[in-house]
Amino acid sequence: MSRDRWRKTMARLDEVLAHIDTNLEPALQRLFTLLRIRSISTDPAYAAECRACAEWHAKDLASIGFDAAVRDTPGHPMVVAHDRRAGGPSALFYGHYDVQPVDPLELWDHDPFEPMLADLPDGSRIIKGRGASDDKGQVMVFIEACRAWKAVTGSLPIPVSILLEGEEESGGVNLPPFLRQHAAELRADIGLICDTNMWDAHTPAIQTMLRGLCGEEVFIHAASRDLHSGFYGSAAANPNRVLARILADLHDADGRVTLRGFYDGVPELPEALRTDWDTLGFDPKAFLGEIGLSVPAGEQGRSALEMIWSRPTAEINGMGGGYQGEGFKTVIPAVASAKVSFRLVFDQDPHRIRAAFREHVRARLPADCRAEFKEHGSGSAIRFPIEDPAFAKAREALTAEWGKPAVFIAGGGSIPVTAELKQALGMDVILAGFALEDDRIHSPNEKYNGTSFHKGMRSWARILDALAK
Amino acid sequence: MSRDRWRKTMARLDEVLAHIDTNLEPALQRLFTLLRIRSISTDPAYAAECRACAEWHAKDLASIGFDAAVRDTPGHPMVVAHDRRAGGPSALFYGHYDVQPVDPLELWDHDPFEPMLADLPDGSRIIKGRGASDDKGQVMVFIEACRAWKAVTGSLPIPVSILLEGEEESGGVNLPPFLRQHAAELRADIGLICDTNMWDAHTPAIQTMLRGLCGEEVFIHAASRDLHSGFYGSAAANPNRVLARILADLHDADGRVTLRGFYDGVPELPEALRTDWDTLGFDPKAFLGEIGLSVPAGEQGRSALEMIWSRPTAEINGMGGGYQGEGFKTVIPAVASAKVSFRLVFDQDPHRIRAAFREHVRARLPADCRAEFKEHGSGSAIRFPIEDPAFAKAREALTAEWGKPAVFIAGGGSIPVTAELKQALGMDVILAGFALEDDRIHSPNEKYNGTSFHKGMRSWARILDALAK
Repeated sequence: MSRDRWRKTMARLDEVLAHIDTNLEPALQRLFTLLRIRSISTDPAYAAECRACAEWHAKDLASIGFDAAVRDTPGHPMVVAHDRRAGGPSALFYGHYDVQPVDPLELWDHDPFEPMLADLPDGSRIIKGRGASDDKGQVMVFIEACRAWKAVTGSLPIPVSILLEGEEESGGVNLPPFLRQHAAELRADIGLICDTNMWDAHTPAIQTMLRGLCGEEVFIHAASRDLHSGFYGSAAANPNRVLARILADLHDADGRVTLRGFYDGVPELPEALRTDWDTLGFDPKAFLGEIGLSVPAGEQGRSALEMIWSRPTAEINGMGGGYQGEGFKTVIPAVASAKVSFRLVFDQDPHRIRAAFREHVRARLPADCRAEFKEHGSGSAIRFPIEDPAFAKAREALTAEWGKPAVFIAGGGSIPVTAELKQALGMDVILAGFALEDDRIHSPNEKYNGTSFHKGMRSWARILDALAK
Repeated sequence: MSRDRWRKTMARLDEVLAHIDTNLEPALQRLFTLLRIRSISTDPAYAAECRACAEWHAKDLASIGFDAAVRDTPGHPMVVAHDRRAGGPSALFYGHYDVQPVDPLELWDHDPFEPMLADLPDGSRIIKGRGASDDKGQVMVFIEACRAWKAVTGSLPIPVSILLEGEEESGGVNLPPFLRQHAAELRADIGLICDTNMWDAHTPAIQTMLRGLCGEEVFIHAASRDLHSGFYGSAAANPNRVLARILADLHDADGRVTLRGFYDGVPELPEALRTDWDTLGFDPKAFLGEIGLSVPAGEQGRSALEMIWSRPTAEINGMGGGYQGEGFKTVIPAVASAKVSFRLVFDQDPHRIRAAFREHVRARLPADCRAEFKEHGSGSAIRFPIEDPAFAKAREALTAEWGKPAVFIAGGGSIPVTAELKQALGMDVILAGFALEDDRIHSPNEKYNGTSFHKGMRSWARILDALAK
């Protein structure tokens, strides 16, 4: 690059960053409008709100010059938008407009869909509401960065496509076929995703390893109807008891998962990564202390960081059977059920894990009991080639914005789309997000830091610029 | 008794039975009125309906000459009524006006509180509705027998008091203090309770052994809030997993309950009773087949009849934790809970069982987990002195009505009041009920046979007469 062109580019970036600084208020208002839409994808009652959310995005993107449309799927629709007028390497930004359910509602200290600002004791500001962090806030920091580039320069630094999904929180079964069907349209040189955490409130991070997920629901059926436990107690099979045994047997006494072949494809953490992670100064006491805990509860002999980043897990996300209301009811239910998820690492195969779980259940079914299974999405774990120059450019951009070296870390939560982008489109993904561990995503009182929102926009403005070089 | 007096008594009983036969329709209408009252005692939302139910009974009993009143307790009120103008041995009839919850509502084929008649294929008639059998139908057969005696003769054969409770289905914690407080008023020579089953649709029965009950609810608390299982999975203690282990460990591989000292005070079944029960022709295949099962699920080496009559049990009546709605939510809940009940036999001590359960839970609490307990009532098992002549008289009266020898059996379901009547008032109880195993009490589509209602009234008319002799 010539010295002149370099100066010109720098000047343009500074103008874009300044534009973001002076237009924070309207950006916040747009986010609030988006947060008011109750796009809970897992509950069919909110289907119309999910579509409304997609339509809001398409309209907003069209207003800043994207060729944007709501695209139907058998489930909630996608939003696809393109602005590919620039030269240089192309990027596909992926985000999701759907949010988690809000129960238990009584634990929120405000209406989860009436977003609000609040000031913390340290003087910093937070944005409160369901989806403020996961993923509406994080989607908007990217879109606002694009808006600023367009406002200041009339164009984007590189060709950009945007894909927003409406089923990330509910299995996302329609994404892989959509990607395959529209591979030619969606393929780009690099993927960009903003659905992850910073290392801490001051340290930007790129996640280069992500756990996969295998979600499964099991129903244990016994008698043809609910029974009185006085008349039938012990003589009749109790699905609660059968299910408790099945769930208890998922782990051995050392906290290891007992499913057959579960640890196939799970190597010890490569020494280089272990050394890297050791430098992070991760404090398990602080990590657990924030949620009222003190002792890592997983596999014995593993560090808490391994447990959440590089080891697979089995968690019972929900279970229920019989009478759960006020008071007592001496009933033996006809059915009991559980929602179980497995976090997968390295080369674990979600389909083999699902099969092993079903085998585990069937092996523990006593006479007269029947198991029924329901699949809730799956995604392999993923690792990105951090030697690719795009990763170095993005890291430098983040370092410049935050004034502190950005780090390559891993992620405990799966983002199945990363594996799907790799499989369907052959793309690697830069996962740079500005959420924080205390954002309470999926929980009551979700929030997004004002700093994450502001510097997140600036970070994406810088990354778009860096990728153009 | 002189031959004349005997003739006169017989003629009076025949008149009473004829009166019952010709006044079936108004008796049924009264029962329907009672069944329409939503007296679900375990749910505080129905407190007013419980009181309305008590008031209805008091008014009805007053209308046939009882000195009747609604009597307050710290919970739902009692109904106490006396008509002690006759001579001879006195009786206290106990029943309950409260009913079980009706969920899952979608499994009912009619409004549970809009009772209806239905004809079975064999031409017999059933009364459908929550409480039709347990215990409103069974209470009314006794009250209607009294009504018939009063209508025909102007008096009852023996002094009768009636005590109706409103918390039998929700722990009944206020009954023992009420009995102790009003012991002088309530004490009688014999107790009468109609809250039990016949042996089969043709064979009347008196239950002389009843299992006790110890109900307990446990809450397992871990993190200070619900967590995302991607971020915290395996590092954070999961109450669902802890609870599953606690519940699974309640039984060993042979189906025996593992609580410390659980089988203290549980002898082998006395040989005489075993011989008696062998003659009953109990068919475990038919018993379980009716509810879609085939293999007795309890202690290995025990018969199904032992399992439900003379062996203690541990049943998980309800359990729940985490997300149980539609779809999937990758959450680690802050709390999980279970409702567990123990059926007790012979000399098991409910208080020691409760303590052993709590010890079992605490011994399985990993670091960072806390258990909270809630007591849900308890009652010892009970055996009555079948050598007492009152039992022989009642058995003869039942045999006369049904044309088939009445049998002395046991009961799997506890009726804690029987133990409490013994303890507080020193009374034995004749447990003669007309419910059937297929009445679906505590379940959707509860019913009471028309024959149970009609011959139940006639049976009590005969028993009152027999006890006078």
